[in-house]
Amino acid sequence: MSLLVVGSIALDTIETPFGRADMVAGGSAVYISVAASYFTAPIRLVGVVGGDFPKSEIEFLESRGVDMAGLQTIKGGKTFHWSGRYHYDLNERDTLDTQLNVFETFNPVIPESYTKSRYVLLGNIDPVLQRNVIESMDKKPELVICDTMNFWIEGKRSELLETLKKVDVIIVNDSEARLLSAEPNLVKAARMIMKMGPRIVIIKKGEHGALLFTGDTIFSAPAFPLELIYDPTGAGDAFAGGFIGHLARTEDLCDENLKRAVIYGSVLASFSVAKFGIEGLKELSDIEILGRYRDFIGLSRFEE
Amino acid sequence: MSLLVVGSIALDTIETPFGRADMVAGGSAVYISVAASYFTAPIRLVGVVGGDFPKSEIEFLESRGVDMAGLQTIKGGKTFHWSGRYHYDLNERDTLDTQLNVFETFNPVIPESYTKSRYVLLGNIDPVLQRNVIESMDKKPELVICDTMNFWIEGKRSELLETLKKVDVIIVNDSEARLLSAEPNLVKAARMIMKMGPRIVIIKKGEHGALLFTGDTIFSAPAFPLELIYDPTGAGDAFAGGFIGHLARTEDLCDENLKRAVIYGSVLASFSVAKFGIEGLKELSDIEILGRYRDFIGLSRFEE
Repeated sequence: MSLLVVGSIALDTIETPFGRADMVAGGSAVYISVAASYFTAPIRLVGVVGGDFPKSEIEFLESRGVDMAGLQTIKGGKTFHWSGRYHYDLNERDTLDTQLNVFETFNPVIPESYTKSRYVLLGNIDPVLQRNVIESMDKKPELVICDTMNFWIEGKRSELLETLKKVDVIIVNDSEARLLSAEPNLVKAARMIMKMGPRIVIIKKGEHGALLFTGDTIFSAPAFPLELIYDPTGAGDAFAGGFIGHLARTEDLCDENLKRAVIYGSVLASFSVAKFGIEGLKELSDIEILGRYRDFIGLSRFEE
Repeated sequence: MSLLVVGSIALDTIETPFGRADMVAGGSAVYISVAASYFTAPIRLVGVVGGDFPKSEIEFLESRGVDMAGLQTIKGGKTFHWSGRYHYDLNERDTLDTQLNVFETFNPVIPESYTKSRYVLLGNIDPVLQRNVIESMDKKPELVICDTMNFWIEGKRSELLETLKKVDVIIVNDSEARLLSAEPNLVKAARMIMKMGPRIVIIKKGEHGALLFTGDTIFSAPAFPLELIYDPTGAGDAFAGGFIGHLARTEDLCDENLKRAVIYGSVLASFSVAKFGIEGLKELSDIEILGRYRDFIGLSRFEE
């Protein structure tokens, strides 16, 4: 079913111990849309780029079934640029450069054709803009999912708390969960975040997998133990895309299906990190995705 | 079946954000033996204490079916003492004091009655002493498991490598695995450690669970998401005790049973951290242990 994705679109320069990629397409809206495109259609993207964003990348997104009616192109402007270098163990990275460029004044305008989207995924942007998007919808969507980050948790806390009242699912990493709740224990942190609005809390733990919290359930998903991780950039967004993609495809929000969605998110994240930028998400087959899903069963199942 | 446990016996003073325990029984041999005692008998302990070690704790160990024939008591000496303070999030701790006392010259002497033990668990002690224990055995045991730590990996590397050649299972945490293998990727690290001798590698990741590597299998076990962790001291040893206890009880070293053993290890670790020192391991019932095992199934299972 229809999925609206709002987030950043970037040109990233990424250095890892295994190589370097220069000015490649990235940003949360891109990773999310591509990952979700293996599960559902239409995907409706809202974002902003400058005149320098490669036409080939837009064509690629269109080829994946992504509706680009919500793409704003600022002809004389430059696309949001992020440059970072990962440490040896890939768990830490230094930001070398951030140029917000056209993203600095990004105001997500939701085209009329998008306003009936049943699933909404709000990438990590200003919580005020996230709320504006929710309020632009024709009626309450089936599911609103949002990501956020330390910058907003610390810098726009009251705005973020207002937005969270309208959100069904929050996806954050462990340090963000701890910062948002002021509680180091992740189980307690999730319960406290639920009281802020979201009825479903997903805490990503990078190489350690993810935790899903609903009213009744805690589910622990492993990360896929890869021998080679080339580039962790976008893994969390690929996770979010696989997660919402599976839910939008199946239209089933029961706990058991939420667990499957978390695994599909982990599957897409595992493909994403195996190549630079979005390359790992570009040519997946249904058989590969299902095969990796089954690998996750083998990885985590044990007998009574 | 018979299990030999060699390791430290300590009087610990522990501070966490939730309280403090003064001079309570601890040390790897104690945590391992108590945890394993819920699964198998006899358990044969080898360790050293001073005259200050409480008789009540020895009686408690005996009440759990632990054979104390291998306990050396240095009447005029003092028991190994460790004092530490955990940080707010319990993931880090500062050692405030370490007094090796009688442990400094510990030489594990294996009583004749212990030399036919089929399972051997070598807690984190000098790798030379670990090797001496293995060589004291009447014949090659069914399974030799060892723990180690950064101190030995850095300080006695060549001795440790000699010992590892005689070891079937190594249990280390993620930073120890990375240090031992000089490889940040845990999958590769485990493969490299296998080449050093152990055919089974278990990497503990604290609140993130544990990974089991065998020739054919990678298994990812979650940690139990507890709302209250009072004291992480000894969690890794409780894990090792539950793991070896289940194997000694079932005498089955197939991959599926190794996975179950990892979960039983995680079960015992989850009980251990819920109270101070070994208190959490003192009065468990089979029903509680089986119930927590089933909770782990609920925590990690998802449908195809």
